[in-house]
Parts: sequence; structure tokens; C-alpha cells
Amino acid sequence: MDKYFREKALQYHKEKPTGKLATLVTKPLLSKENLSLAYTPGVGACVEEIQKDPDAAYLYTNISHTCAIITNATAVLGYGQTSPRAAKPVMEGKAAIIKHITNCDAVDLVIDERNPDQFIECICKIAPSFGAIMLEDIKAPDCFYIEEKLHDRCPVPFFHDDQHGTAIVVAAALINAIQVQQLEINSSKVCILGAGAAGYAIYQLLTTIGFSKKQIIAIDSQGPLISERENQSIYKRRLINTSFSGSTSDAIKQSHIIIGVAKGDIIDQETLLAMPQNSIIFALSNPVPEIDPQSVAQWRPDILIATGRSDYPNQVNNILVFPYLIQAMLSARSGRLNDKLKARISRYIASLVQAKKDRILPDSFDSRLREIVTIIQTSELITC
Amino acid sequence: MDKYFREKALQYHKEKPTGKLATLVTKPLLSKENLSLAYTPGVGACVEEIQKDPDAAYLYTNISHTCAIITNATAVLGYGQTSPRAAKPVMEGKAAIIKHITNCDAVDLVIDERNPDQFIECICKIAPSFGAIMLEDIKAPDCFYIEEKLHDRCPVPFFHDDQHGTAIVVAAALINAIQVQQLEINSSKVCILGAGAAGYAIYQLLTTIGFSKKQIIAIDSQGPLISERENQSIYKRRLINTSFSGSTSDAIKQSHIIIGVAKGDIIDQETLLAMPQNSIIFALSNPVPEIDPQSVAQWRPDILIATGRSDYPNQVNNILVFPYLIQAMLSARSGRLNDKLKARISRYIASLVQAKKDRILPDSFDSRLREIVTIIQTSELITC
Repeated sequence: MDKYFREKALQYHKEKPTGKLATLVTKPLLSKENLSLAYTPGVGACVEEIQKDPDAAYLYTNISHTCAIITNATAVLGYGQTSPRAAKPVMEGKAAIIKHITNCDAVDLVIDERNPDQFIECICKIAPSFGAIMLEDIKAPDCFYIEEKLHDRCPVPFFHDDQHGTAIVVAAALINAIQVQQLEINSSKVCILGAGAAGYAIYQLLTTIGFSKKQIIAIDSQGPLISERENQSIYKRRLINTSFSGSTSDAIKQSHIIIGVAKGDIIDQETLLAMPQNSIIFALSNPVPEIDPQSVAQWRPDILIATGRSDYPNQVNNILVFPYLIQAMLSARSGRLNDKLKARISRYIASLVQAKKDRILPDSFDSRLREIVTIIQTSELITC
Repeated sequence: MDKYFREKALQYHKEKPTGKLATLVTKPLLSKENLSLAYTPGVGACVEEIQKDPDAAYLYTNISHTCAIITNATAVLGYGQTSPRAAKPVMEGKAAIIKHITNCDAVDLVIDERNPDQFIECICKIAPSFGAIMLEDIKAPDCFYIEEKLHDRCPVPFFHDDQHGTAIVVAAALINAIQVQQLEINSSKVCILGAGAAGYAIYQLLTTIGFSKKQIIAIDSQGPLISERENQSIYKRRLINTSFSGSTSDAIKQSHIIIGVAKGDIIDQETLLAMPQNSIIFALSNPVPEIDPQSVAQWRPDILIATGRSDYPNQVNNILVFPYLIQAMLSARSGRLNDKLKARISRYIASLVQAKKDRILPDSFDSRLREIVTIIQTSELITC
């Protein structure tokens, strides 16, 4: 980030009211009569109705349109673990984007609890205040464990954006990139750099849109997840490719599709030059992509490159997805996403552009993305 | 609550958007550039600054102007314990009032945890998301224990409104009522009906504004708190009057001042008739006062009566206080209320009206109440 841009970003946040999010009273409150309706004694009628039927809270409180954005600050952007307060501007940003795009209300909560079981407890205790929950910036493998446990316990629908939001938009981008590069899903080899929240969810979704497990090599900081790798978590064991053996560089060199959700500059020039013709590289790490897009343009102009950055073409950003997912969750009131539904959303997003090498995804504010909510609402794939 | 008013209150809450509170984006977000400032990559600059210095969160996030209203739903209005969701309309009401009156932002959280230690844990974990916390509707004696423990642990300032907000406004009303009735503080006997959150805090504040412990008899559901009463909590032991012995009715009959913060109709006509000349009755229980104000007007027109209801004169309502207390807490960023400061605020509120028998407090929206914030800000009485 250059100094000038950095200062501009700080100034944007510093301007009063500080931050990006505030609250708004939606009903008249000024007169004594309004006060007696909104507060005692009138509010007592709402208390009584909700005490009789908890679902009456959707009629008489804001939970029908208000979600929480929750993090434990263990994987904040590219910074890894931060203090809870340091994660707050990111969460406030997500909440502001949701409000701006969907008009649903979102409250950000940074929770000072890193133990997964205790974090789950805390989320369940807060949950009655909201209609849905979006989890953010939770490190792997804790995020998988937290999600599994929460599905049994959380009284409102939720999803982990870094997994599912990211996987949906990556799959959408990939569907179009494959078409542009005239590759075939069932014959293309894929390398996923990074086996954290995003890598894991992308792997699962790729197997739903037509890739077989044999076609995908997942790679973490220790190298490819292959049979020889021992003592892996149950989540990493699910990603093991039993038919490949070799190094990270070997894996990349034989792959038509590289999806980088790891950290920084990890594809070197020699590896780049050895990749198959008309390959695809998604170098999504932020702010430093897995390979410099300018090197790709210079040395391998046949390759289609996408990044997570707004200053290059083909930005792959889950802003295309998460506002609509949480809006649909608020509307559904129960249920969860599954891979078939996620694949359907990816295909819809992909269909919104006439794919070209420098335009594989629609713009962030494309109004047709709202249809994602309808796709989820009309889907029978969401179940409790 | 009559049927018509009840229906009106439900309709008020049901109108879309349901409830009373929403969120608001305070900065421009529409363009790609604004998005890059509010969210990645620009937001990273804020993360870095707050990671270096936690107090930078007051510059770059909304915690400088955002508080939480938190309850465990154990003492909701006059309903006692309710489900967490049933408490939500009350909390949303408090949050909306704070926003409306002070323009500070408030987020309501109902927490599904009744164990006091676990509730404290949960509050501390959520606290980094906010600049201050107002606790509401927590049953006694848990509320005293929770407050004491939180003072050692909570990273942001907080107060329990049912204790301190109520005590401040009751003391303000009493200062004026005593003047109207031409009583003397140091010779008036006081009876506090109810030894819960409000009763306890009122007792403490009365001893700060000039009443001696000997003048005050606190009464709970078992009768007067006197030496003979054994096995009391440490909080109730602090209220014991060692110089009185007798029944609740004896206590009321000899008192010049009755402060009812108990439940329902508990002062009978015989007791009323026996009370000293020019007494004061604050029958603050809602919706049913400790005595019907019309009976007082009929049988003892010399007595000054106040209630918690908006449909009689002299409504004693902590709306006169809590919005400004939480605004001052947000501004102070640390520290706590103490009884001397509370007494100072009570005296200020009392000074805002030319006290008359049917007007001992200013109106809810009196703009001069804003001065309470300045009183706290300029006070040296608030310490960590």
C-alpha cells in the first residue's frame, strides 16, 4: 500500500463519525405517545407475544432484517491473528457493505475468545439478538470445527464467508476462465495453493462442479497433500491426492489451473514457464499475489490471470456473494448452504458476463447479483 | 394495558422494517475507490494502526460513538425472567432512545446466559466491539455481583441502568418533593419497598444526599430488613436497619417518604390513612403502582404522589438519565460512576424545574438534561 493511499484510507475512517457504521431509529419516537408505544408500557405487549411464541420476535423486533458479523480475529485479512479491536475495521467494512448492497442491517462483533469451544458458546449466547450470523476471519482448521459444531447448536442460520463466499466466487470465475481458455473440466488438472478456510471450501466446491478428486492437488505450507503426508488433521486428510507424488513445483508445472489462496509470491519464473499452454492462474492472495500479474503478462501471455486486487483486471472478490448469502439466510430463518446450491449460485454469477480474458466476473455492484437471493429462496437444497 | 393500546403498540413494532432499530452506513461506499478505502486493501492501514495501539480503534472504528445495551433477561420490566428474545423489544427500545436523544449509537444484545460468572465472561469477550456498555434488566442480587466483578475485568466503562439510572432520577424527584412538602432531609423517615437492583441503589444514594441509615427502612418480600432477619445476602445485610423492629405496615405508617420499587398494589387504605401529614409516596412499580394514585388523591390529598406511569403527573422515569450517562461513558472511555457524582447529577436535574406538587421533574426531552454529560465530563469523581 503506498503512503498516499494509506493516509487516504486512514483519513476516510477518521472523519466523524469515526468508522463506517452507525445506528438508525426507524420509528417515530419524539412524542410522549410514541415513547409509550416504543418503550413502557406499550413494549410490554411485544414482550408478552414473544414470550408465548419466540418466532414473534420476527414480527416485533429487528431480527427479521438484522444479522451479526462475527470474528475471533484469528485470521484477519493477510495479517493472521490480531487483537480483537484491530479486526474491527474489517468487520465494520463487511457490515457496511451488507447494508449498502442489500439494505439488510448488520452489526459487527469482534469476540475476544480464541478457544474454539468457548467461541462457539459465546456465539450461541449472542445468537437470539440476530436473525442470521456471518462468520469471518477465523483460522483453519478451527473454522471447520466451529462450523460443524454450530450447525447442531446455533438457533439461527449462519455461514463462514471465508469458506463459502470465497468458494462460490472462485468457482464462478473458474467456470468462465475455463471457457475462455478452451479447457475441459474433466481433463484439466488443478492445483490449490493453500489448504486453509478458502482452499478447503474451494476444493469441495470444485468436486461438485465436475472435477474429480484425482484432478486436484491441494498444497499447504509443507507441500502437496499426498499419501506420504502423515499426522494431518481430519480436514487436511480429506484433501489428500493418493495418485500424485512430487514437489509443489512439480504439481504446478503439470496443472492447467492454479488457484492461489495462500500467502505472497510463491510461483517462480521457471515454474511459470513450464506450465501447460492456455493455463489459468488465480493468484488471490492479498495484498501480494502468488505471482506478479505483470510477469505473467510478460512471460506467458497465453495464461489467464486473476487476482484479489482491484488494481488489476479480473478481481475475484467475495463481495459478489456474501451480501446476498446473508440476506437469503435472514429471509430463510433456518437451514444451511450445501455444495449443490453453492454450485448453482456460481453458475448463475458466471452467466452474468460474456466471458473474456480480462472479464470473467461481473462488477461488484451489478444489480443482477440480487437474483442470488431468489435462487436460494426458491431452492429446496437448503435444509436444517 | 387496554386492548386498543396493546394493538397499537404491536402495530407500531410490526410496521416494516420490524422493530425500532436499524444500521446506517456513514461513509460513501458506492465507487470502486471508496470500496478500496473502506474495505481491502485500505482498511488494512486501520488494522495495522490498531494492532500497534488499541486506542487507535477510537479513531478508525465506530467504538468512539457506539455502546451496547446488554441483558440476560432475568428481570425484564415487571415480567421477571423471560426468554432472551422476549427481552429484545425492551433493549431495542433503550437503544433507540439513546440514539434519538444523544445521537450516540447503541446496539442491543440479549444474552442467553443466566449464570452470573458465565454472563460476565460473555460480556468481557464482546466488550472490544464497543466503547461503553449499559446493563439492563438483570435480577438482584446477581446484578450487584456482576457489576463488582466487571469493574475488575471489563475493558470499557459500563453501568447498570436499573440501579444507577433509577437511583439518580428518584433522588432528583425526592429532592424536589421534599421541598414542595416542606419536609427536612435529616428528620424524615424513609421506607423503601423493594430491595432489588433499584431499591439497593436508591438506598445507597439517599445516604449520600443526607439521609442517615437510621432514617431508612428497606423492605423486601419477606418484610423489613431488620436485625432479626437472618441468612441474608451480603447486599441485603448492608440495608439492615438495626434500630427498627416491626411490620411493613408499621414501617410505612411512621414514614414521611415511601419509595416503592417493588411489585403491584401493596399499600392498603388503612396504612395510607395512618401516614404522617404531607408525606411523599413514589409508587414506581409498573404497570401496577404500589398504591392507586386516585386513592391517594381521594383519601390523602396532602400527600405528594409520583408513579412510573406516563398517564399520571410526576412520572419518575430513568429516560431522564440513562441516555446522558451512557453518552458520558462513551466520552470518558474509562472510569465509573460513584455516589457523589450521582448525587450531583440528581441535584442538577432537580434544579431544572420550579418544583410544584404535580411537577417535580423536567420533561423527558428537556434539552437542558444534556448538561449531565458535561457534569460527568468535568467531574473528577470518575476514576478507574
